[in-house]
Amino acid sequence: MSYDTNTSRAETSAHTRGVTLWLTGLSGAGKSTLARAVARELAERGRRVEVLDGDDVRQHLSKGLGFSRADRDTNIRRIGYVARLLSRNGVDVISAAISPYRDVRDELRAQIPGFVEVYVKASLDTCVARDVKGLYRRALAGEIPNFTGVSDPYEEPLAPHLVIDTERETVAESTARVVQYLAERFPLAFPLAEPARE
Amino acid sequence: MSYDTNTSRAETSAHTRGVTLWLTGLSGAGKSTLARAVARELAERGRRVEVLDGDDVRQHLSKGLGFSRADRDTNIRRIGYVARLLSRNGVDVISAAISPYRDVRDELRAQIPGFVEVYVKASLDTCVARDVKGLYRRALAGEIPNFTGVSDPYEEPLAPHLVIDTERETVAESTARVVQYLAERFPLAFPLAEPARE
Repeated sequence: MSYDTNTSRAETSAHTRGVTLWLTGLSGAGKSTLARAVARELAERGRRVEVLDGDDVRQHLSKGLGFSRADRDTNIRRIGYVARLLSRNGVDVISAAISPYRDVRDELRAQIPGFVEVYVKASLDTCVARDVKGLYRRALAGEIPNFTGVSDPYEEPLAPHLVIDTERETVAESTARVVQYLAERFPLAFPLAEPARE
Repeated sequence: MSYDTNTSRAETSAHTRGVTLWLTGLSGAGKSTLARAVARELAERGRRVEVLDGDDVRQHLSKGLGFSRADRDTNIRRIGYVARLLSRNGVDVISAAISPYRDVRDELRAQIPGFVEVYVKASLDTCVARDVKGLYRRALAGEIPNFTGVSDPYEEPLAPHLVIDTERETVAESTARVVQYLAERFPLAFPLAEPARE
């Protein structure tokens, strides 16, 4: 009955569809930083882009949900729903939520055309050392239950489209690799700059 | 910190922004029917359109929420969040949720540029007589608590942009009136067909 469940025009046209870059990784691995850098780069290429940041989405779509597996999966599916609405209307979406569970990531990967799974990788030691938000210190002191990597599992992707090692690459290098990947997989949407003619 | 909270390019350009048609009214008043008809009409004019239907959104974004005033308001704010994301990227959004409370409607009206409040109006008697989903019969039998119009309030809009009286108009007439309104308020986005030259 719902119009929304029909195939929209955008569903049928590769030209007008956006991609969904799904960043997954530990807290502190660098997902939000990479998301913002890639978003800027894509916007400069004339793309419409939305970053769905984990904290922001929790605030707007998932207040009241906790950090049990079921609640985390529900949160991730909601981001997936919004990503589907945006991407089928030509907007590129960059999700920057931990999304620790493989099953729900695979579910979205199968459901969303133009889905790109990006493993934003840094060791737990590195993330603890960075401790950007001061959360690891509190989690290790037992003050935060269900903290991914400390008291809750993180299931690494088995076959991500891209692995971004934020311990070895600069943000600029990672961004360039993401754009390079998009240009190769979606050449119509992301043409590489043509070399100057002599 | 979130990229999403920044002003996007779309925020600054009236040309690339979508409108948000916010239909409000009793269950059975005709919101979903009108939403689909207007969506078809706008799509034929080359617009990108998404219908956010009440039932569909409850399923994807608000499972677990009930029908208390607080839960209804949370549901409506979530639809508003998605409408904001879509409309600032040039997608027209048609919300078809009851949205019975004035305060939260006014909140969204103030927050979302291009917001159009459409009161889809039919008397309770008419809605009960139609009883499209068989819900009024059950609500009147006391089987469904918190049912808008029966055991829960519906606060009519005091100053809607448009009132669509579905007892007196056909769907085609209502659709034409909505499009006419859009053409007058947003002439760049919704140009009226030019009269043929002699």
